[in-house]
Amino acid sequence: MERERVYLPALSRVAVCGGTHGNELSGVHVVRERLKEKQQRVDDDEEEDEDVVSVSNILTNPRAVQQCRRYTETDLNRCFTRATLSSAVSDRTPYEIARSQELNILLGPKGSPQAVDLVCDLHNTTANMGVCVIAYSDTDWICLHIFKYLQHHMSDVPVRYIHFDLPCREAYSLDSLGKHGFALEIGPQPHGVVRSNVYTYMKTGVELMLDWVRLFNSGTVFAGGLVEVYTMVSAIDYPRERQTHNIMAAIHPELQDQDFCLLRPNDPLFETFSGATLRYQGPEPLYAFFINECAYYEKGIALSLARRRSVEVPPVQMKSGLEHPGDPGTSEEEEEED
Amino acid sequence: MERERVYLPALSRVAVCGGTHGNELSGVHVVRERLKEKQQRVDDDEEEDEDVVSVSNILTNPRAVQQCRRYTETDLNRCFTRATLSSAVSDRTPYEIARSQELNILLGPKGSPQAVDLVCDLHNTTANMGVCVIAYSDTDWICLHIFKYLQHHMSDVPVRYIHFDLPCREAYSLDSLGKHGFALEIGPQPHGVVRSNVYTYMKTGVELMLDWVRLFNSGTVFAGGLVEVYTMVSAIDYPRERQTHNIMAAIHPELQDQDFCLLRPNDPLFETFSGATLRYQGPEPLYAFFINECAYYEKGIALSLARRRSVEVPPVQMKSGLEHPGDPGTSEEEEEED
Repeated sequence: MERERVYLPALSRVAVCGGTHGNELSGVHVVRERLKEKQQRVDDDEEEDEDVVSVSNILTNPRAVQQCRRYTETDLNRCFTRATLSSAVSDRTPYEIARSQELNILLGPKGSPQAVDLVCDLHNTTANMGVCVIAYSDTDWICLHIFKYLQHHMSDVPVRYIHFDLPCREAYSLDSLGKHGFALEIGPQPHGVVRSNVYTYMKTGVELMLDWVRLFNSGTVFAGGLVEVYTMVSAIDYPRERQTHNIMAAIHPELQDQDFCLLRPNDPLFETFSGATLRYQGPEPLYAFFINECAYYEKGIALSLARRRSVEVPPVQMKSGLEHPGDPGTSEEEEEED
Repeated sequence: MERERVYLPALSRVAVCGGTHGNELSGVHVVRERLKEKQQRVDDDEEEDEDVVSVSNILTNPRAVQQCRRYTETDLNRCFTRATLSSAVSDRTPYEIARSQELNILLGPKGSPQAVDLVCDLHNTTANMGVCVIAYSDTDWICLHIFKYLQHHMSDVPVRYIHFDLPCREAYSLDSLGKHGFALEIGPQPHGVVRSNVYTYMKTGVELMLDWVRLFNSGTVFAGGLVEVYTMVSAIDYPRERQTHNIMAAIHPELQDQDFCLLRPNDPLFETFSGATLRYQGPEPLYAFFINECAYYEKGIALSLARRRSVEVPPVQMKSGLEHPGDPGTSEEEEEED
């Protein structure tokens, strides 16, 4: 039996962000291309007045983009906790901390009624993750419905939902500035490189997300249903030498590129540089993801582990002054989907 | 009819170098592992006196390795021209230029009788190149025989020989310090990442190279034969915006990962960020390689193009005071190969 319909406010302000990590190039080029397209429409004097959503396209770490590095002084995408956003800024404050506070003024303030309705932050990974929607909540129906919509419309690539189980004040990433927000994480793509297929997945994902928002804002009812959610449980570091902290092994070739496989106790985990196999010693089977992500070497993460479960998502419709409970809305996505 | 046997001096000093680009991690870890193994043999008091070759294992750009970047100030692997090696050094000299002169003292001087006999420099690429031996000569029988030996013994990965057609004084890479030298370039592997399979290919390649050197030094006769050589002809840059110099396209999905395919006039080359296909406009079919190598974005290279041809390699044997022309040597590799 389907859950009762949930009415939610319109999403009138959306931010599409790229370059939060300056060497994750699909997001950088998607944002640049969207800015060019917008400028072209202005130059061509096209009307945009009737659009039901205002979209900001933002390169969020321009210094890191310019240097084609993840960050210049500290990882911007760890700077959006309440504590960091409210810390005092001086001449010696790292660039990215100052920048996070600028972005908080532009897109937030985080947790306030003035914050933008939805932030979609574009990321790439060297891991073989396909398309992932990464969010902090497993009960944010907007994020889960957008995920459902992407999964339905992007049939040639796996689309998954990852849930980082943290309270809002500890949520550290840019997307936590919005009333709703998620990272769109796509891989595999080496950092500092753009691959056409990954770029196209990302551009398509953003366009589908905005299509969903426009349909939602125009009153469409979106059917509920079960969705699979991967909830982050823990992470495993590489084996390292005690004195130098250098890694002593790489991800085992049988595990490399197998993101979202079920890793069972005693499965191969690492292959040491002298050729020995090290096995997963955890007490329970878990799903592996972010396997061999480049930027996580310095964070001490060789792979992350998740539990998979199903979430029953209710049907949603925009809340307006006009709707009546039971109103079928202007269009039913159920029909479109079948 | 086989060419006449060529007698060449023993290769008594060999250098295995990694970390010339600090974020090409297979080479970094192969050198570290070889240093650990050597230390272990010393600790275990194993005899190495009888080895017919002295091998130095060197991390060549330790600062860049420490920062996991290609280079700190300038690309070390462009610093080994005669001009750069003889330039004056001051306090303001980039680290890598000073380091290239140190390495020239350690392994060279380039072009002198004191130079090491063979330099093997370990590199990774984000391009789908498999295993490549990259050298400046198509008549260096030592490099070509080592290539032939790797190709014969590494049957699960393509092994190719790339020839950069430059005179010695202009040869810019570390391997040009030795009397013989080549880069062992293996991909695809994202920079800043180590993939176990690529690491294993590299470690195996180095061990096979040293096996060949030991066999050669002990008098083995290596049979000649035809080998395929890819000679670098030209390079193509990404289409770029005039004002910003930003790229406007990525490698076309049909060309991505197709290194060493024959690119014919009118074949798809790029896909622009707005979705258009741009085609190869060159006058003749050529072989594409280094397709979408990360570090070449800044050098203005989206891919390189080569001509392929066959080189007749003569049989070789070590020249000693004892050999007689026509001496069959201690062992014939022909037998092993057939």
